[in-house]
Amino acid sequence: MKDDRTFLLHTVKLASGGIETGAGPFAAVIVKDGDIIAEAVNSVVLTTDPTAHAEVNAIRKAASGLKTHDLHECTLYCSCEPCPMCLGAIYWSGIRKVVYASDRNDAARAGFSDKEIYDEISLNPESRKIGFIQIENTGGDQVFRKWVEYEKKIPY
Amino acid sequence: MKDDRTFLLHTVKLASGGIETGAGPFAAVIVKDGDIIAEAVNSVVLTTDPTAHAEVNAIRKAASGLKTHDLHECTLYCSCEPCPMCLGAIYWSGIRKVVYASDRNDAARAGFSDKEIYDEISLNPESRKIGFIQIENTGGDQVFRKWVEYEKKIPY
Repeated sequence: MKDDRTFLLHTVKLASGGIETGAGPFAAVIVKDGDIIAEAVNSVVLTTDPTAHAEVNAIRKAASGLKTHDLHECTLYCSCEPCPMCLGAIYWSGIRKVVYASDRNDAARAGFSDKEIYDEISLNPESRKIGFIQIENTGGDQVFRKWVEYEKKIPY
Repeated sequence: MKDDRTFLLHTVKLASGGIETGAGPFAAVIVKDGDIIAEAVNSVVLTTDPTAHAEVNAIRKAASGLKTHDLHECTLYCSCEPCPMCLGAIYWSGIRKVVYASDRNDAARAGFSDKEIYDEISLNPESRKIGFIQIENTGGDQVFRKWVEYEKKIPY
């Protein structure tokens, strides 16, 4: 069976090759039972989709292929440490292991905001650069009450 | 022009209505120049896509409609405080203002992991529940060097 380093080297090669195609310099590969089931590059600019990071693209592909949102049997390889958006996607997908090459500091030196967003996310909503405003008494609690009481729901 | 409370009440109504359709109990609406340009519910289970939170879906729709990944002129309304994945997506999209009803603690009481992921994200990669493994000398630095030197790149 191929090892982590081999899958990661393949991922880094994908990231490098994507640059000439207009992709951002990031790639991600998802492996299940020793086989690659999804691979993707960053297509933010190519698809005008700010969420189209390599990891999100790969998770969407893998989940679509497996016909489940639950990827807990999968390992994710990424050319760079996942940003907070991708980290969140990883947790929601159930992926249990992530292997990466560069980190958020390397990404910052190449002009990407990963580290800055990590720093922002730890702040209280009211202390962030983006305005986060909670308006109370707007019925949010009733939505969750309805969900909790709804018998046909599929929890996830 | 409609005010924040009006748009938020509309968003909360969308979230409530989505429950019977199989959606998760979350909705998001994006407004530009006083008009709604995208709205979405959480379709994780419906589309077997762990990234299909209401905010991500709405951002993808808005960016697709505007044909740009840059949504800095937009405001996002969400029935609940965005989770870390969605928060990351908001930063990458350039959205400058977020208005929400419920918060991460309300979501936790309804069975969702938002708060847990916020807590995990602040930890060092090696301290998290998911294994994060960096393997050095795998060429990640060369990818960024190639990107920095690539003259035809479109920075984002």
